[in-house]
Amino acid sequence: MKVGFQGEAGAYSELAACRVGAPYSFKNFAGVFKAIEQRNIDCGALPAENSLAGTIHEVYDLLMRHQVEIIADTYVRIEHCLVGLPGSTVENAKQVFSHPQALMQCDKFFYEHPHLEAVSNYDTAGSAKMLRESGSMERLAIASAGAAEIYGLEILQRNIATYNDNYTRFFIIAPKGAKKESYGVPLVTQKTSLVFNLLHETGSLFHALSAFALRRINLTKIESRPLRGRAFEYLFYIDYLEPEKPELSARTMAHLKEVVSSVTILGHYGCIGETPSGPIM
Amino acid sequence: MKVGFQGEAGAYSELAACRVGAPYSFKNFAGVFKAIEQRNIDCGALPAENSLAGTIHEVYDLLMRHQVEIIADTYVRIEHCLVGLPGSTVENAKQVFSHPQALMQCDKFFYEHPHLEAVSNYDTAGSAKMLRESGSMERLAIASAGAAEIYGLEILQRNIATYNDNYTRFFIIAPKGAKKESYGVPLVTQKTSLVFNLLHETGSLFHALSAFALRRINLTKIESRPLRGRAFEYLFYIDYLEPEKPELSARTMAHLKEVVSSVTILGHYGCIGETPSGPIM
Repeated sequence: MKVGFQGEAGAYSELAACRVGAPYSFKNFAGVFKAIEQRNIDCGALPAENSLAGTIHEVYDLLMRHQVEIIADTYVRIEHCLVGLPGSTVENAKQVFSHPQALMQCDKFFYEHPHLEAVSNYDTAGSAKMLRESGSMERLAIASAGAAEIYGLEILQRNIATYNDNYTRFFIIAPKGAKKESYGVPLVTQKTSLVFNLLHETGSLFHALSAFALRRINLTKIESRPLRGRAFEYLFYIDYLEPEKPELSARTMAHLKEVVSSVTILGHYGCIGETPSGPIM
Repeated sequence: MKVGFQGEAGAYSELAACRVGAPYSFKNFAGVFKAIEQRNIDCGALPAENSLAGTIHEVYDLLMRHQVEIIADTYVRIEHCLVGLPGSTVENAKQVFSHPQALMQCDKFFYEHPHLEAVSNYDTAGSAKMLRESGSMERLAIASAGAAEIYGLEILQRNIATYNDNYTRFFIIAPKGAKKESYGVPLVTQKTSLVFNLLHETGSLFHALSAFALRRINLTKIESRPLRGRAFEYLFYIDYLEPEKPELSARTMAHLKEVVSSVTILGHYGCIGETPSGPIM
């Protein structure tokens, strides 16, 4: 099983990909989606949200634009390390490279070290690789311990994230209509993920949520997001736990479609490994 | 009237501050809040959300931690320019400095110019100032046309944001219990902003929204946000339009408090200038 992920060897995404099959590195998210549609790989492991930094909207955008669906989710614990070439120090460094989400998650560290410039890079492990290639003692990176090992870097400080309860949730994504049986992922449906747009009227979100609440269906995620290019309009992401009676799920979706302007179902799926505790709504 | 804002002269925040009084520059958001509480300034103009990049969570965090309230909001149109020292070019540049939100809003530009490194800085106008001081032709900044003029920089490209419908909404913040009359802000209450936490039970968000929907009160913003340090739990931000009968607003708040685990009201206020069209929910 070929599983695409974004980033270099040693990326957190690679750990997620390994839970399904053999990891294949791509430079960006869009490359993974294209390769799935063209059947160059079997599926992909893409980050959906991080417990501290929130949702990765680009992945949701790509999910909506491609002929794919979510066939599983899985959670990876994130432990950010400050890494550098052997002999480098925090005091002598000037720049720290990492993915913008990782930089945000270490905001307290940057606040405490105002002489360090936080520089955005496409990937945590890619920052470690670039650091090795640059040979610069003035540069550091934030990456996993695994990435430090792969690229021969020293760990200057472990767990530099502001908060330690840090997980990234990954979606396992396959071509639309794919048979879950052939992927070795859980066959039981535990969750459904969907995206919707509201009608512009009083109580429209309340009406949308009634489709779930009146059937006592549990939501585990709701997030609103400004629609790019339209000032202060919102798109909503929802995950709900599959009810015991499967026909309830179908009725909920039929009801929801009546009361919102558009719905896209991203997948019905189970979880690989453990799910950290989260809210029920 | 002394009005604090975050950033250097030429920041978008300075434009918002000028609508209320004389602008006073602060290095960070926390500094503005502290100065308000200590009565060193009369009020502050702090960014609450941007139509493309979303909510500025740090400002909400500070609002909840300090003895302050929102006494008005106001919208500033954002027009990002790529600026550099006279004679610099996109082709010869290596780095572009700006606030992380501004860098995100110009993501298409960076995608099209992969040789340019996006470097996070504390402020758009501060990036322009730093560029002037560095004297480097390899560096550019993303800032307002006003900042370019103040710091003697050339505009290499106007409107480099991915989408043009780009506004930042600012909150005007004063000490808790401040008399609006003495600030020259609108005395009519048009909106209320609040933050709440949900109970962990099925339908809890639906119940929270019922306090508004059953009274036909319009929501203009709802956003959920992961609670930092607690995996996948959410805090909700809501803005609602003030109903015609003022007692309805008080009853809505009493009802909401019954069905959520905590509520913080951030302010009841009017808008300075025009409000761009947005959703009603």
